[in-house]
Amino acid sequence: MSRRGERPSPETLAKLPVAVDAMGGDKAPGDIVEGARRAAEQHGVAVVLVGPPEQVGDTQGLELVACSEVIGMDEDPAGGVRRKKDSSLVRAAELVRDGKASAMVSAGNTGATMAAGLLRMGRLPGVVRPCIATPLPRLGRTPAVLVDAGANAECTAAMLVQFAQMGAAYVCARFGTESPSVGLLSIGEEPTKGTPLVKETHGLLAGSAGGGAGSVGFEFVGNLEGRDLLPSPADVIVTDGFTGNVTLKTLEGSLRFLFDTMLGVFGTDDATREASHVLLPHLLPLAAQFEPENTGGAMLLGIDGVCVISHGSSNATAMMNAVLVAHECATRGLADQVAAAVRSADPA
Amino acid sequence: MSRRGERPSPETLAKLPVAVDAMGGDKAPGDIVEGARRAAEQHGVAVVLVGPPEQVGDTQGLELVACSEVIGMDEDPAGGVRRKKDSSLVRAAELVRDGKASAMVSAGNTGATMAAGLLRMGRLPGVVRPCIATPLPRLGRTPAVLVDAGANAECTAAMLVQFAQMGAAYVCARFGTESPSVGLLSIGEEPTKGTPLVKETHGLLAGSAGGGAGSVGFEFVGNLEGRDLLPSPADVIVTDGFTGNVTLKTLEGSLRFLFDTMLGVFGTDDATREASHVLLPHLLPLAAQFEPENTGGAMLLGIDGVCVISHGSSNATAMMNAVLVAHECATRGLADQVAAAVRSADPA
Repeated sequence: MSRRGERPSPETLAKLPVAVDAMGGDKAPGDIVEGARRAAEQHGVAVVLVGPPEQVGDTQGLELVACSEVIGMDEDPAGGVRRKKDSSLVRAAELVRDGKASAMVSAGNTGATMAAGLLRMGRLPGVVRPCIATPLPRLGRTPAVLVDAGANAECTAAMLVQFAQMGAAYVCARFGTESPSVGLLSIGEEPTKGTPLVKETHGLLAGSAGGGAGSVGFEFVGNLEGRDLLPSPADVIVTDGFTGNVTLKTLEGSLRFLFDTMLGVFGTDDATREASHVLLPHLLPLAAQFEPENTGGAMLLGIDGVCVISHGSSNATAMMNAVLVAHECATRGLADQVAAAVRSADPA
Repeated sequence: MSRRGERPSPETLAKLPVAVDAMGGDKAPGDIVEGARRAAEQHGVAVVLVGPPEQVGDTQGLELVACSEVIGMDEDPAGGVRRKKDSSLVRAAELVRDGKASAMVSAGNTGATMAAGLLRMGRLPGVVRPCIATPLPRLGRTPAVLVDAGANAECTAAMLVQFAQMGAAYVCARFGTESPSVGLLSIGEEPTKGTPLVKETHGLLAGSAGGGAGSVGFEFVGNLEGRDLLPSPADVIVTDGFTGNVTLKTLEGSLRFLFDTMLGVFGTDDATREASHVLLPHLLPLAAQFEPENTGGAMLLGIDGVCVISHGSSNATAMMNAVLVAHECATRGLADQVAAAVRSADPA
């Protein structure tokens, strides 16, 4: 536990600014600063930028917490956080820890963002390992979330059960889902399918749900398969971080491939170009639901604070949405709810 | 080794019929028999059906090897093969073992097909575990193959290295690919990314490729991520059977979801229906490359014979293509080539 005092009340958190790593992401600082400004001006969310003044440049009127270093996109995460104590990522995490910001957002080095959040804000009591929750679109409904989307390549069954608890608390806090459903990613519906890890996790989740669904706060719906992810019948899909990351990137890659292929067909000749003008107004809103920029980014769960990990390719819109999600989750007491979900499930 | 004698020569194999499990798959026996007949009549491939005569019904003039049992789609695979010694799956595998068929094809219970192939034909010398190779489309090129697509939920690094060898031999035999490239599915390009299993496998593949690419017969191109699968830059993608199965079903599910969504948009109103008439002739050939029915099914590698595992939803076209692939691979000596690839890589 690195937190220096009590967690601020929701009222206090609502007034605190969101700390934005101005130097994180492929489009930093331009799009990052622009997105932060739009969150502030268009949505009234207080924002503070963090970064080296000479690199950030024009802050568009936003407050800047100055620091002297930046952790690069490809830098070793743990080493970067350890060595660069005055980096934008580390300083942003410290603002949350010290009660000077309600949440942090970065589109920078994912591993370093995780490390900064974990090391500076600290783990919530009882949490074995933080995990990353990434939204999966469901047309016309609130997104499902995949946990763990890549924080932990190696997992135990106890960790996966906690991912389920934390994921359930997250969809409650973010989407207002009551009694969320949880599915376990496997290679068949039967409890006997999968790796030893998956089979053990299935037993634990089935037992905990049966033994007292109220205390755990979710309903376990059993195994799901890869073909169930779009759209997911469960609000939360639990898996280890290796499978989660491969799966997520497979989804991203296949959808992008198909969109690109379709756009290629649209440009074949005059007739297809004309036809595409009719269809695109219908297709673009659908495509938008799959764009990372509209989902507000991934959430690091299990730390004592709110930390949004945005896509490295985030543009201004993505950053604005990430700031809004961060602010909303902080104000709704996400960390408290995650802590309560883990605590209530652990009788010790 | 269950084989009773020497493997037949390619010339002999080319004349032997392909054994088709007439009772396997959701559309058995109707579409299965129809597909087998088309392979025989339209492509001159000899075929023998296997199944209980009273259940198969009209054989459309094809020879039928009679048996008395059928292993159900949801039946326990190992138990089914053990108990039902006179089942269509077991008898089909025995025809290959006994040199009476060049290959077998089934769209039935995947696990039972694997078990029948493995237990009746036997493992090739030196093969630790057979694996399933499934084609992934690459528009305008020969497909890539994913190994293991689901045979082994638990794997060792030595097994993954063999999957690479067997997969490379398969794309050589089936597509004529010279010096195929092999990628390892992970969560980042760097050799340090992934589970201990992936990291160990990376080291072994990098070492074996560097130490004597000629003897192994493939080029190791390093780690690939989920977003690289469509289209895959490598001819063979290696992963454990759990990740492989989840990934494959994720691909299937996301592409189906997007096609369905697009078809929904096409039917919105008269204008979109008209536009769709212009675009569909361009889109359908693309979509066809993603249809399981056109890929000829998955191949069980590492057994002493040729065994094609078709999708449970296989229609007559899918079955015809599966029979053609089975015949072609048997005639080209797939099992011999897989055996040689494993043997040459093992100095013992």
